[in-house]
This record gives sequence, C-alpha cells and structure tokens, in this order.
Amino acid sequence: MNAFHKLVSANREGSYSVSLAPGLSVGKVAELVSVIDGRKSLLVTTPTVARLYARQIAGSLIESGVDLSTVVLECNEKSKSFAEVERLCQKCFEVGLDRRSLLIGLGGGVCTDLVTMAASLTRRGLSYLRIPTTLIGLIDAGIGVKGAINLPNKKSAIGVFFPPEHVLLDPSFMQTLPRELISDGLAEAIKVGVAMDPFLFEVLEQFSNELLKSPSTADINKLTKLVWRSSLRLLEELEKNLYEDRTYQRILDFGHTFSPLVESMSGFRVSHGVAVAVYIALSSAVAYELGLLSVEDRNRILRSLRTAGLPISSPILTDEVCDKALREMEAHRGGHLNLVVPTGIGKSVFIDEKQALPMSAFRTALRFLDSEFSGLTVLRPSASTITHAVAPD
Amino acid sequence: MNAFHKLVSANREGSYSVSLAPGLSVGKVAELVSVIDGRKSLLVTTPTVARLYARQIAGSLIESGVDLSTVVLECNEKSKSFAEVERLCQKCFEVGLDRRSLLIGLGGGVCTDLVTMAASLTRRGLSYLRIPTTLIGLIDAGIGVKGAINLPNKKSAIGVFFPPEHVLLDPSFMQTLPRELISDGLAEAIKVGVAMDPFLFEVLEQFSNELLKSPSTADINKLTKLVWRSSLRLLEELEKNLYEDRTYQRILDFGHTFSPLVESMSGFRVSHGVAVAVYIALSSAVAYELGLLSVEDRNRILRSLRTAGLPISSPILTDEVCDKALREMEAHRGGHLNLVVPTGIGKSVFIDEKQALPMSAFRTALRFLDSEFSGLTVLRPSASTITHAVAPD
Repeated sequence: MNAFHKLVSANREGSYSVSLAPGLSVGKVAELVSVIDGRKSLLVTTPTVARLYARQIAGSLIESGVDLSTVVLECNEKSKSFAEVERLCQKCFEVGLDRRSLLIGLGGGVCTDLVTMAASLTRRGLSYLRIPTTLIGLIDAGIGVKGAINLPNKKSAIGVFFPPEHVLLDPSFMQTLPRELISDGLAEAIKVGVAMDPFLFEVLEQFSNELLKSPSTADINKLTKLVWRSSLRLLEELEKNLYEDRTYQRILDFGHTFSPLVESMSGFRVSHGVAVAVYIALSSAVAYELGLLSVEDRNRILRSLRTAGLPISSPILTDEVCDKALREMEAHRGGHLNLVVPTGIGKSVFIDEKQALPMSAFRTALRFLDSEFSGLTVLRPSASTITHAVAPD
Repeated sequence: MNAFHKLVSANREGSYSVSLAPGLSVGKVAELVSVIDGRKSLLVTTPTVARLYARQIAGSLIESGVDLSTVVLECNEKSKSFAEVERLCQKCFEVGLDRRSLLIGLGGGVCTDLVTMAASLTRRGLSYLRIPTTLIGLIDAGIGVKGAINLPNKKSAIGVFFPPEHVLLDPSFMQTLPRELISDGLAEAIKVGVAMDPFLFEVLEQFSNELLKSPSTADINKLTKLVWRSSLRLLEELEKNLYEDRTYQRILDFGHTFSPLVESMSGFRVSHGVAVAVYIALSSAVAYELGLLSVEDRNRILRSLRTAGLPISSPILTDEVCDKALREMEAHRGGHLNLVVPTGIGKSVFIDEKQALPMSAFRTALRFLDSEFSGLTVLRPSASTITHAVAPD
C-alpha cells in the first residue's frame, strides 16, 4: 500500500431483546405498549392473523393511546419480492413514519421477512418489532436478524442482516395453528434437542403428541417451556455468529445441510420443517452406521419425529442427491464439510472430511429409513408424503 | 421485564480502506488486481465512463487474469429505483457471483449508489469496491458507507449503510469531467475547508481557477492534494458517526442544512453542489451579521465560491423558505438546531437554539447576497442560475 491510505473503522454496535409476552394473543398489550413507548407505529400482518388476532391487538393498542396504522399483506412465497417490499416502504411514508417510528411485524415467516426488509431499507433503517405467530417463527425464523425475499426462480437470493429492536413471544398463538405448521416447528425444536439439549428433547417426547392432538387445549406451561427453551438455545448459538461471518461451523446447521436441496427439488411442495425432519432422520441413521450413535438413541430420535407428525424419509432424497449435496456443501464451505451428526441425545459432532463419510453409509441408512420401520409409533403417517402443504402465511 | 428475557448482542465488526490508486484511469491496474485477489468480479459502470475508462480498465484486468464480467447501466436519477437494483442483483446471479465474489462500482454517485444497494442485498451481502469518477464521488459521496434509491416523488427515501471493502481514488478521472461537475465537487471541498481545514481552503483558493480552466492539463500533484486532503478530513468526521446513530452534531452537515430543500424545491434542477454553495454563502453572511465572522473572512469564502464557478444565492432561497427550513430542522433533530456556521477560515461552531438565529439576520444576509456583489472576481457567472445541469452519471 502507498502512503495515501486510510483505514476506516466500521464497527456497528447493537443489541436486541427477546422476551415472553404471555396474553398478547388475547389482547393483553401492556408489554407491547411499553415497548412502543409512544412512537408512531405501523402494524404489518396477514389476512389470517388479522382475523384471528391482529384486529383485537390493534384495537387494544389504539385504546391504550398508541398512534397506530395497520396494513394487511397477502403473505406467501410469491409476496417475497422486491415489488412487495417497495409497496411496504411506500406505505411507511404514506402513514407518515419518520426515523423515530416503529414497524411491527405480526405474522409468520413471510410477514417478518417483509417487515425486516422494509425496516432495513426505509430511511436507511427504521426500528422494528417481531411478533411471530407460527411455531417456526417463535423458536427459529422469527427471533434472528435475517430477512429475505426471492428473485424469480431463486429462493431467498436477496436478503439482509438487520436486527429488530425487540422480539415478543406469545406461545398461545400456537393454539390456532394448523397441525402441519406445528409439525414444521417441532422439527426445528427436535433439531435443537438432538444436537444440544437433552432436557428439551425430553419435553418434546412427552408433549408433542398432546400438542398435535389438541393445540387449543394443550398445557400452556409445557408449551411455554418448549418455546422458551428452544428459542433460548437458538439465540445462544446465533449470538456467536449473528452475521455468519465468523465461522463455517454452526451446530444448528444440523438438519439444514440437505434441506434446501430437498425443498427446491420438490418445487417447494415439501415444507422446510419436513425437509429438516428428513435430514435429522438421515444423519441419525448415518451416525448409527458409522458407529457414532447407539441404536437406542437413533430409534428415540426417529420416534420423536414420527410422534411430531413428521416423515423420516422422502422419495426425493436418493443416493445421487446425497452425493451431490455433499459435493456442493464441500465446495460452498471452502473444502470443509462441517456436517453436524448426532452422537447421542443432546450431543453432536462436526464431520469435516468427505472421506469420513463413505457413500456406503448413506446408502445403507437410506435403505433402512425407506423400509417399513415397524418398531415406531406413527401418529400421522399421512404427513410423510411430499405433498406437505406450504404454510399459508 | 419478566424472567423470560434474553438480551442478544448484535455488534458487527468491520473496517474498510480508502487509498489512492494513481494511474488507474489509464489502465494501471496493479493495485486493483491486488485488491481483487483472485475473486470472480462484476464491474458495474455507466455508458460515459465505459467509453472513457472502463473498457480499458476491464481489458487490463482481464489481461492480468481477473475473472471479470462487466455491466453498463444507464445511471440517472430515474435509475435509482427498486427495479434497477433488482436487475443488478439478478445480473450478479447470472454471471455466477457467489458469496466470496466481488462487485466493483466504477462511476459517479448513481452508479456507486446502485452497487452499494445491490451488494448489500445479494446473498445477504457481497463484498464490493468503489471507484468514484466524479469529484463529489472522490471526496464525498463515493467514500462513505451509504447507498440510496428513490421512491416515486421521494428522493433517497430508501437506503442502506453498507461499508465497501475498499475505495480506490484516482484524481486523474477529473481530467475529463464536465466543468459543472467539477464545480459541484469544489462546493464540497470548500465546505470542508471553511468548516475545519484552513490549509485545504488555501489549496482551493490557489487551484480552483486553474482546474476549472483546463481540467485535462491541471497540475496532478495539486489535484491529488485537493482530493486526498478533502477525503481524509471527511473520513475522519464520518468515522465518528458512520451509521448516524451517535449524535446529531455533525460538523460536515455544514452546507447540508438547507440544500435538500433547495434541491427539491427546484425539482432537482439545482445540483447538490450548487445548493451546498448557496448555503455556505448564506451561513457565512449570517455569521457576519451575528458578529461571528469578520468581513474579510466572509468575503474570502464568497470569493472562493465564485472562483469555483458556484453561485452565492438562489431565487429559491427566500425569507420564508429559510424560516421553514429552520423550523423543520428543529423538529427533525428533537428540538435542537445544531446548525453549523463558520467563525473563520477553517473554524466553525454549532448554533443549537433557534432564538440565537434571529430571522432579521437571515433577511439582511439574503439581501446582501442578492445584491450586486461587485468586490468579487466572478469566473463563471452563468453557473449562478437555477438551471445548473443534473449530473449525467
């Protein structure tokens, strides 16, 4: 470098808080009002959530004196577009938000994605809140700092890292959730349990069945334990590498190695949760073949997936697809696989080298999972098809 | 707050470097090749810059073995749109950029704005370089971390803070710059000189005339001194508050208090540089009226603007507009004006209270500036109209 050289420090400080807000779903807005703290706000929600919750919440906020506007967006994969983000940014100006105003995203993953994008871009960044209403939102997608939209034929190609100011979690939103979406969320919770938290895994073993059978009457204390424990574990992991620039080794990538491939190969008819479940099953079966996981623990993991209404195999995941996925992952991660495989309930390791993962182990594991797996209780075998519905919101 | 509460640290570390790369404009790409460091790259440029420089630079890069694609974008205010950013993001995928690839913006403000936006959004953030080709780019807009686009009828409503990896400055790009664009840049340099750097101000007094008369033969050492000194001062100030979240007091807001209003009221026929010049003149005349600035220093400042081919008044800036601007600024900044006014050459103060700025001082100052100001050398009086051209790139 020459003498004319200046290094500019570009550190950015920030933090955000995630907390439980019980009763929010039934219009108890005290905590939300205290977070809003007198700021002009725009509540963004979906048609379903508007009908079930948002109208009541907005009403309570306005009664509490909040200067609130509301916008209801169709939220599906097609809405995750530049055009929709632009419309939402325009809406921010239309309702008169300024730099000190607040965006509030109340809905599923697409809703919080759009709100994150619009908040990051409007006036170079507005403060925003996330109030996730799906189980995946409550314990995974809704509590981090990422927002994404699609390009034509390129899912989540566009995105930002933009921390919210607060995330408010009310597990009661689950009481009206379709079972498919509960199963999707349970896949993420099982992932956390298997990889790092035996206590959470036991909660899931004992509670999944009850929750799926009757979400509206499920024990709220158990539900809260499930949501808080899962999200806390994820946040602890996220915090180490929030902007994904520090390391390629992320333990909670467990289950996410093959899932994007399975989702895209199905034309996104396979939900994210189902794809994660299929991979948890596969890696457990492979770990058993490699002598890393006992037969008992493998079976407990597979049983927990079935109890949660999730499949353990998919016609999409063939030998060839596995081979392709491993090669792509190796290329993507600079020659390192960093594949997470379980070694017990709540324990896992990274496998770094492709040589340590012979394709023969994958082949045997896939055969085993495809075969009649008669030793397990199957709650909802119909969910193990590839026609699992895409989440409406 | 309840017991279920987790504070997530969201600090983001980063830095970027700004350095001189003399000879880049004539295809000496050694420094650029070393910065690219083997990465697949997409060079984004404008039709004018492509013809004058980018073809030669791209040729030299490819000869040096760089895996380079090039895209030429029409860059005008209309291009600063969501649609254009989306097209550029798609282009990144089309040419096969991955997370380790590089975007390179070679052009004026609109070009680097679009590249900043696309880099921040593609795959949640690509590394990018800025190579500004206008004087405003070299010493101001091109060396920071901001990118912006417009909404219909809302200029720069959408934007990001997204630091580049490197900024490379070659003052020789100025040799083919239209005089209007040189004047625009000189307004920014005069701003820095008046507010904080008497040495830079003297360089400008001695060199502006020569530079404007014949940019292609102007002394490259003086040009380099002007560019480097201005950009270094700006970077030192930027660094204290890169994300504009630490303070409302920014000394280099000097000249930018009324300029957005003047620009927008003219329908953007008044360039940014001209609007800044008009305000530098106004605040100097006001400072004199308030007894903060000597008549000699006021006249030196006004003369420097005229020598740089810049106006010192505008029919748009009336008493009423000043009053409105002050009231809006006070509202925008939480009751504080934080108006920068010069107290000498290279010295300035913040005025915090509207009471300290009687409208009578503004009225007298405006009358004085509007009147025949016969004591000054006028280089390009024609530039002092409101039909100053908008920069083509």
